[in-house]
Amino acid sequence: MSGTDHAKAADWAGPTPTVILVEPQMGENIGAAARAMWNFGLDRMRIINPRDGWPNPKAQAMASGAGRVMDAVQVHERTETALEDLNFTFATTARSRDLTKLVVTPERAMEMTHSMIAEGQKVGVMFGPERSGLANEDIVQANALISVPVNPAFASLNLAQCVLLLAYEWRRLAGTDAPSFMEMAGTDFASGLEVQKLGERMEEALGARGFFWPEDKAESMILTLRNMLSRLNMTQADIRVFHGIIKTMEKPRR
Amino acid sequence: MSGTDHAKAADWAGPTPTVILVEPQMGENIGAAARAMWNFGLDRMRIINPRDGWPNPKAQAMASGAGRVMDAVQVHERTETALEDLNFTFATTARSRDLTKLVVTPERAMEMTHSMIAEGQKVGVMFGPERSGLANEDIVQANALISVPVNPAFASLNLAQCVLLLAYEWRRLAGTDAPSFMEMAGTDFASGLEVQKLGERMEEALGARGFFWPEDKAESMILTLRNMLSRLNMTQADIRVFHGIIKTMEKPRR
Repeated sequence: MSGTDHAKAADWAGPTPTVILVEPQMGENIGAAARAMWNFGLDRMRIINPRDGWPNPKAQAMASGAGRVMDAVQVHERTETALEDLNFTFATTARSRDLTKLVVTPERAMEMTHSMIAEGQKVGVMFGPERSGLANEDIVQANALISVPVNPAFASLNLAQCVLLLAYEWRRLAGTDAPSFMEMAGTDFASGLEVQKLGERMEEALGARGFFWPEDKAESMILTLRNMLSRLNMTQADIRVFHGIIKTMEKPRR
Repeated sequence: MSGTDHAKAADWAGPTPTVILVEPQMGENIGAAARAMWNFGLDRMRIINPRDGWPNPKAQAMASGAGRVMDAVQVHERTETALEDLNFTFATTARSRDLTKLVVTPERAMEMTHSMIAEGQKVGVMFGPERSGLANEDIVQANALISVPVNPAFASLNLAQCVLLLAYEWRRLAGTDAPSFMEMAGTDFASGLEVQKLGERMEEALGARGFFWPEDKAESMILTLRNMLSRLNMTQADIRVFHGIIKTMEKPRR
């Protein structure tokens, strides 16, 4: 899916959580994580001790279009310094760690994050190296753990996918997107009167051709037809199409 | 994130929506979509007119671990036949199509899908080719559109990521995952009495060393200490650690 609209960018402003990549291995994965973030408006990334140093040309290339995230990256040597100014940090983890700690879903984590950020707090989410995940030395520095409820028979999210789900939840819970709307292609919904008139016309045209038969069923057949017409939730354009169909069907075949 | 647990697989049974890939180009993307699906328990994939034919070795290789999805793939030549047995089909799209059609978020789409599947209906979600997205000829066959609320300044979800978000929403809305729980590493939360006793011990040990000073502040300092101890929501193990700290601090430096 692609497509970009600068006009709607305004309601994406404001503070967001910080994504913290701990000892990422592949530059490509750093770039893919940046893209995942920026798809949902996150632009604050910190990287702790990247394996291949920094800057990393492969990360830059992969992050194409999300250069804003790359430009603002903070690189730290130690987890401690990366977390210094944060009030609350989540650690993402796939397995139990034998540490007494709150474990939350991505949804609950981002609910908590919205509340904390609204209070002026700074919140981070840590992601571990691709192969091994976060070490317990990093996890003990987090205030809570995030566990994505993946299929117990197949748990294989990559780094960027994990970042994507958290960024998606952040954005979803911002609650500024209408859950549904009707896209109207240059038309409007029909009025009750327009639907009634179409019904009368169909009834007349069909009745004149013996459609409502046998006679003792006619009343219920008419009710069924009327019910269908109102259930279809037609537009004015739809009504015109149906009028056109009836008009055409009244002509003889050529 | 990785890790697999066959024991918890049971509550992932039951009918799920069908993922329909229309004219996918790269085998790798088909395999990645299968993995994304199976992470969240979706295993029904249909492919319409894959560019490189079927079976596709690159798709099989990329789908590693999600072979169950690959084994059950249905291949169709035309969208029409792929949708024949479905009661409701969503089409994913990134841009407006000048067609009058209901547009929903992934969340709303999967809410609707859960309702329809609970009623015994069969539901599909169509995804278009990587470069161009779905053609209008396919979109008019869908009952509603899904639009992912991506950043208007940067919309770049790939096929597998788009599938991942829908599969994640399906699973999230199944509602069987506790939003949060406390992982307890072999301990239990402390009782009120245990917290009170620790408070008394700290008060005594600190008071004997002149901590609560000046005297007119002593009462409020004690209240602050007690409030902190109850707010910390300590485990029995934490309580023991604090008792050990106090005991140790009472010894002279070596």
